[in-house]
Amino acid sequence: MDQSPPAGAEPTRVVFADGMILDCGMALPDMTVAYRTYGTLNAARSNAVLICHALTGDQYVAERHPLTGKPGWWDQVVGPGRPVDTARFFVICANVLGGCMGSTGPRSPRPPGPEVAPGALWGTDFPPITIADMVRAQRRLIDHLGIERLFAVVGGSMGGMQVLEWAARYPDAVFAAVPVATAAYHSAQNIAFNEVGRQAIFADPDWRGGRYWEQDTIPARGLAVARMCAHITYLSEQALSRKFGRRLQGAGTGPASPSQASSLFGDMFEVESYLQHQGSTFVRRFDANSYLTITRAMDYFDLAADHGGDLAAAFAGSRTRFCLASFSSDWLFPTAQSRAIARALNRAGANVSFVEIESDKGHDAFLLDEPDFHRTLAGFLNGCAVHAGIAA
Amino acid sequence: MDQSPPAGAEPTRVVFADGMILDCGMALPDMTVAYRTYGTLNAARSNAVLICHALTGDQYVAERHPLTGKPGWWDQVVGPGRPVDTARFFVICANVLGGCMGSTGPRSPRPPGPEVAPGALWGTDFPPITIADMVRAQRRLIDHLGIERLFAVVGGSMGGMQVLEWAARYPDAVFAAVPVATAAYHSAQNIAFNEVGRQAIFADPDWRGGRYWEQDTIPARGLAVARMCAHITYLSEQALSRKFGRRLQGAGTGPASPSQASSLFGDMFEVESYLQHQGSTFVRRFDANSYLTITRAMDYFDLAADHGGDLAAAFAGSRTRFCLASFSSDWLFPTAQSRAIARALNRAGANVSFVEIESDKGHDAFLLDEPDFHRTLAGFLNGCAVHAGIAA
Repeated sequence: MDQSPPAGAEPTRVVFADGMILDCGMALPDMTVAYRTYGTLNAARSNAVLICHALTGDQYVAERHPLTGKPGWWDQVVGPGRPVDTARFFVICANVLGGCMGSTGPRSPRPPGPEVAPGALWGTDFPPITIADMVRAQRRLIDHLGIERLFAVVGGSMGGMQVLEWAARYPDAVFAAVPVATAAYHSAQNIAFNEVGRQAIFADPDWRGGRYWEQDTIPARGLAVARMCAHITYLSEQALSRKFGRRLQGAGTGPASPSQASSLFGDMFEVESYLQHQGSTFVRRFDANSYLTITRAMDYFDLAADHGGDLAAAFAGSRTRFCLASFSSDWLFPTAQSRAIARALNRAGANVSFVEIESDKGHDAFLLDEPDFHRTLAGFLNGCAVHAGIAA
Repeated sequence: MDQSPPAGAEPTRVVFADGMILDCGMALPDMTVAYRTYGTLNAARSNAVLICHALTGDQYVAERHPLTGKPGWWDQVVGPGRPVDTARFFVICANVLGGCMGSTGPRSPRPPGPEVAPGALWGTDFPPITIADMVRAQRRLIDHLGIERLFAVVGGSMGGMQVLEWAARYPDAVFAAVPVATAAYHSAQNIAFNEVGRQAIFADPDWRGGRYWEQDTIPARGLAVARMCAHITYLSEQALSRKFGRRLQGAGTGPASPSQASSLFGDMFEVESYLQHQGSTFVRRFDANSYLTITRAMDYFDLAADHGGDLAAAFAGSRTRFCLASFSSDWLFPTAQSRAIARALNRAGANVSFVEIESDKGHDAFLLDEPDFHRTLAGFLNGCAVHAGIAA
C-alpha cells in the first residue's frame, strides 16, 4: 500500500462500505473518513502520529485550507522541524465523524431507502454520535493504513477528549498520548455555552428544521451568533483587553467616553467588529448541523462515567506515556480539569507528566505561538521516540 | 406634596414635560420616570435611600412584581428589618431611562411630528443613552420629591455603575454610596457578551428592524438566546456544577454516559432546560429594544475616561462615604474591578471601605442569600445613619 500523501489538492478519503454501529445503537450503513497525511511511514510502521482536531477544526492541520486559503490550523506544531516533526513522524489527521469536511456527517447523502427522497442529505436525521464513535472511526482508518500501534495521539480541546478516549479504549495501540487543554468530561458551564449556540441556530428560520439545503439557504445568522458566543470562551479576559480594550473601530487608540458622543453612538467597539468578523467568516466554512452534532458529542463526553464513575479505572494497567498540558488563563478547560486527569492517571499507576503553561491567551493558546508549550511537546515526543526506537 | 406610596398597584410616575437633553446631544421632548417608594420620608428629608437597578431589573425592588408575580428582586435586602430597613429609611427605586417598566424608553410613544405616524413608538429611533443620562433622570425625580441630599445610593452591577456616577456627578447630594459587584468601566469581555446578545436579537426576523410592535410580534427567540448567554455570565462555574452538574432532565441523579445512550440522546441536560426556561420567561417581561439600549449604555460606561483618564479625579474632594463589595466567584465584574475603584477612591482621599465576600454563586450573588454581604451592608448603613443623625 502506498502511504505517501496524494499530490493533488483533493482530500484523501476512505470509504468503509460495511459502515459502523454507533454508541446510540444505530448503524451507519457506510462510512467515509476524510484525512490528510504528512511525512512518511517508516518500514516498521512505528512512527505514526495521529492528530485529533477540535470542534471547528478539520484534517488540514499543516497545509493551506482548501476553503479559506489560510495556513493549517496547527502549522506551528506540525511540520518539518516542528514539535511534531514530519521529517521524523508520519502524521495523520482525519475529519471527525459528524464533521463537514468529507467524513460522514449531517451534510453527507442519506443512504437510499423507501422513505428517503433521491438526493436527500442526512441533516438532522444524522444519528447522534459520541467522542468514542469518532475514535472508533479513526481506528478503522488506522487499521486501513496498516498501522497496529500509533506512536502518539495528540490533540487539544475536543481533540484532547479523543486522545483520552484513544488511550482508554485502545491502550496497546497508543505508545504516547498528549491531551492538551482538555477535560475528562464537559462541565455544566461548557454544556450551557454549547446550548446557547444550538439555540441560536434553532432560532434562525433559515435553519428550516435542519433541512436548509432543500431551500438552498444556510442558517448564517444563527450559526454566526453561536460562533461569536463560543469565540469569547476561547479567549481570556486579559487577551480581549490587550487586543481590543475599549477602542472604537477606526477611532484611533483612545478609549470611548460620552464626550465623544457624536462619533461614539455611530461607531462600534473593535471587539464587536472582531466578533462579527469571526461569525461571518465561520459560516462560510462550517455546516450548522455538524455544529449541532459535534457540540452534542462534546456534551455527552464523560470518561469516568463510562468506567463506573472512576476515571482511574479508564486507564487501569495502561503502559501509555502521557503528557498533559493546560494553559493558566484557559477558563473553558481550566487547569483543574487537567490536574484531575493527571491524578487519575497517577492512581492508575500510569506514566504521566503534567505541565501548566503560563499564558494569558486563554483556551486558544493551544493553537497559538506558545514556545513553552512547543518545547514541552517536542521534548516529550523526542524522549518517547528514543524509547520507541524511532530513528531521529 | 404627598410622599406616601400609592395604595393601588399602578406604578408611580412623574412626567417631566420639559424633557431632558441627553449625552448624545438629542433632546427628549418629555420624560417619564416610573418609580416605587417604601417607608416614610422623615421631616428633615434626610433618610432617603435610592436603589439603582441592574440591566434587567426594575423599580419593583421589594414587592410582588406586577407582571411575573414574583417577590421583589431585592426582597432580602430592602424591607422592614432588612439591611436597607424601610422602618428607618425612605427607599426609592426608579425604572431606568431606556427601560420598559414605565420610564421613557424605546417602548414609549414617539412624540408627534411631521414624519411620525400616529401611535408610533420610539423603537430603535430612541436615542442612545448613557449611565449618566439614567442618573440625571433619577436626579430629576429626587428633586421632584423635594429631597436635596440622599442618605445613600445603593446598587449592584449596572446599578453600581449608577451609584458611581451619582457619587462622581453629585457628590454633595450623596452622603453614602454602596457600589456592589460593579466596575468603573465595561471590559472588552463584557462588551463582547453584550454584543452576542444584541446580534441574537438582530438575527431574529421577528425583530423586524426594531419595529416589531407594528406586526404585533416580539423577537422572542433572539431575546431568549441573548438572555441565555447573559445568564451564564451571571453564574459561576461552581454554581452551575453544584446546581446541575451533568444531570439529565428527569433522569434521576446519575451522570450521563454513552451506556445510557438510548435515553441520553432523547433527553437534555438539566442545565439546558434551566437556561431555556430563563430565556422563555424573560421575553414575557422585557422589551428587546430596551435590552439593546441598556446594554449599549453599559458598554459606553467608562468613568475614568470621562475625567481625563484618571478615576481618582472623578471623586476628587468627595465627602461621600463609600462601601464597596465584590464577590469572590464573580467573573463578570471581578474583584479586581472593585479593588481598582477602591484604590482610586483612596488616591482621591475619600472615605472608603471595601470587602470581597467569599461566595461561589458568581455575579448573581449580590441578589441572593449572602449573609456576610447583608451584614456588611446593614453595618455600614447603620454606622452612616448615626453620623447623618438619622433616628433608629
